[in-house]
Amino acid sequence: MTRGRRQAPVSKKISESAVRRLSLYLRTLEELDRAGQEMVSSEQLAAKSATTAAQVRKDLSLFGSFGKRGFGYTVEELGRALRDILGLTQPWRVALIGAGRIGSALFEYRGLTHRGFQIVAVFDCDPSKIGRKWGDSMIRDVAELERVVGDLDIQIAILAVPVEAVQGVMDQASRAGVRGVLNFAPRRLKVPAGVTVKDVNLVIELESLTFALSQGV
Amino acid sequence: MTRGRRQAPVSKKISESAVRRLSLYLRTLEELDRAGQEMVSSEQLAAKSATTAAQVRKDLSLFGSFGKRGFGYTVEELGRALRDILGLTQPWRVALIGAGRIGSALFEYRGLTHRGFQIVAVFDCDPSKIGRKWGDSMIRDVAELERVVGDLDIQIAILAVPVEAVQGVMDQASRAGVRGVLNFAPRRLKVPAGVTVKDVNLVIELESLTFALSQGV
Repeated sequence: MTRGRRQAPVSKKISESAVRRLSLYLRTLEELDRAGQEMVSSEQLAAKSATTAAQVRKDLSLFGSFGKRGFGYTVEELGRALRDILGLTQPWRVALIGAGRIGSALFEYRGLTHRGFQIVAVFDCDPSKIGRKWGDSMIRDVAELERVVGDLDIQIAILAVPVEAVQGVMDQASRAGVRGVLNFAPRRLKVPAGVTVKDVNLVIELESLTFALSQGV
Repeated sequence: MTRGRRQAPVSKKISESAVRRLSLYLRTLEELDRAGQEMVSSEQLAAKSATTAAQVRKDLSLFGSFGKRGFGYTVEELGRALRDILGLTQPWRVALIGAGRIGSALFEYRGLTHRGFQIVAVFDCDPSKIGRKWGDSMIRDVAELERVVGDLDIQIAILAVPVEAVQGVMDQASRAGVRGVLNFAPRRLKVPAGVTVKDVNLVIELESLTFALSQGV
């Protein structure tokens, strides 16, 4: 079996949900790899990701030709290919903005470093926090954001600030040249072209859960 | 202006994204309320939620008749109506399963209590954690889940367990009678009919961000 190759630049037609499924497949592959399994069928990948084998094959075919009919996929090789597709083979330099409770949990979250996300600067606007040390990082004044993003070649910002502040911080971050944002505030952000935002929101998910429970949907 | 009323039982046609927008509108209303603003236009609600005034009116019209043409909405009343629609006027009894790093951050997160989510029991399977105290809660053995969910009338479970364990824990929780689940593990869960799952996943969002950045989507 040869390593799958990307055959063409990826078009814009890849759906958000397909990309999410790639992440789920990668989780499954990593799990199988830890368990020492070498080969996996599309059926097994599908079963672990609550989808169908046909969907797995279709998702993967968007990016090249992987696996061998009747033999399945090599766990390690397909994992490597998915990490490549998902942009996980390079380290990403990240600014964490907001040194509150959520910021602190994120800063301590080993899963980030583990996947190549290096928090190289932490920012807050609270004078009682600025100057404190978190690990090797000193919490900086968010007013320095634009300079520091350039100096440290930061590509991604994690916004863990109160909802009232988040659009202003977003504007600063995009002026500073940040291209990707992970937003934890329950506010849909306005961003210039060329900047990508993803939202992670506990409260929004909880409310869509209680909506379903109370409406009996 | 009369209080908006729900005119009919909500059908299944309400989209996920409409429900999410209701949550965003509610955030905006709470913010305006704190700032002392009494009335709000659909234009202003839209601007704060990165949508259009027509969309705001359409979303709200799914649930009744709110506001008054030319006057807008009463911030406090519309907020109350949205809390009602989203199921936030009753307290929810929650089991937190997984007393690790994410579980701990969630346990400390004041936003949960603030919205009526009471974590009434914490579970883990690690003998070195079982029996420890978190606030007033003793960490319980996850083997007791089924009994405790019944005893404490728990409706919602938050799953903050490793990906390898999450489907098993999900199965236990649904056998125990949990109807709603907030899942933090990067695994799509299989659930019986009548159980609703929402996923919150930092890693999946980050990977869909790095996908976009590295593909230049």
